[in-house]
Amino acid sequence: MEPFSLQKAFTLIEPGPVLLMTTASGMKRDVMTLTWHMVVDFSPRFAISTGPWNFSWRLLKAGGTCVLAVPPADWIRKVIAVGMISGAETDKFARFDLETEQGRYAPPLLTGCIGCIECRVLRFFEEGIVLLQGEQAWLNPQKADSPRIHAVGDGRFVTDGAAADYRSLMAEKLPEGV
Amino acid sequence: MEPFSLQKAFTLIEPGPVLLMTTASGMKRDVMTLTWHMVVDFSPRFAISTGPWNFSWRLLKAGGTCVLAVPPADWIRKVIAVGMISGAETDKFARFDLETEQGRYAPPLLTGCIGCIECRVLRFFEEGIVLLQGEQAWLNPQKADSPRIHAVGDGRFVTDGAAADYRSLMAEKLPEGV
Repeated sequence: MEPFSLQKAFTLIEPGPVLLMTTASGMKRDVMTLTWHMVVDFSPRFAISTGPWNFSWRLLKAGGTCVLAVPPADWIRKVIAVGMISGAETDKFARFDLETEQGRYAPPLLTGCIGCIECRVLRFFEEGIVLLQGEQAWLNPQKADSPRIHAVGDGRFVTDGAAADYRSLMAEKLPEGV
Repeated sequence: MEPFSLQKAFTLIEPGPVLLMTTASGMKRDVMTLTWHMVVDFSPRFAISTGPWNFSWRLLKAGGTCVLAVPPADWIRKVIAVGMISGAETDKFARFDLETEQGRYAPPLLTGCIGCIECRVLRFFEEGIVLLQGEQAWLNPQKADSPRIHAVGDGRFVTDGAAADYRSLMAEKLPEGV
């Protein structure tokens, strides 16, 4: 993975793709499938929604950092499989043959993904919302144009179709550097 | 629009589409384009991220309700146009020829959309996050299978492409009634 502009990092999350989130604390690490997330601001901050029923939650609380990774469309079966089991007794990286590399923090980057954002936890809300500060973004140049995956939530998934550029209509609303 | 199962309402939001959000208070109503949103739980609760720079914010604070509407792919230019101007001095429903109908609360449903969810504000967080309780969902049967729109955030938009059903792999994780 190559460093990616932190100003543009929100563009990895804003389209609403399925994410894989990695966490780590002490000798433990985990990866979970995450579809409940949003951009909060351009700094960039993000919010995710999850809870103590996930093993990753424990590592997120203990470690205070995570990686939000955007998997390409051809990872669909892997993404579902990661979401179906708990990491409490299984190292899902080994089990699903997920290649990793080290970023700034303990949770690993997922090499085969489109992009990754390393985040620091700013706050846990009692409603199960976690506020994250994006600290370092990464892009996989070989995967940058891969379609993303979107979960419908009922077992159906949709991958990105036609793309169109309306930048000229929106120029005045785009943040600096984007 | 026809009533839609509230248990399934989160499936309108989980794929991460661009939304139009309607608000109303007193004699004023507004509609804004919203790409920063997520599901919070299956009850269903949702979170959105916005702030006082939007006219809709004022109506959301005053009225305490909103409609999250999912526009079909062929609304892309309308969605961008709605996002480019403020409703403070313009009735965007009239200006952009948006057909509406009345639901349970004051903010109108958008008839031409794929689906709508009427929500009540549960809480405003100082970070600009608003927690919403979905109260009533609606589906447009003529538009139910339309592709959705996803914003990249830099002026590019992507519409839904291929869909696939992996329900059989995920059956044990799906919530009741979905």
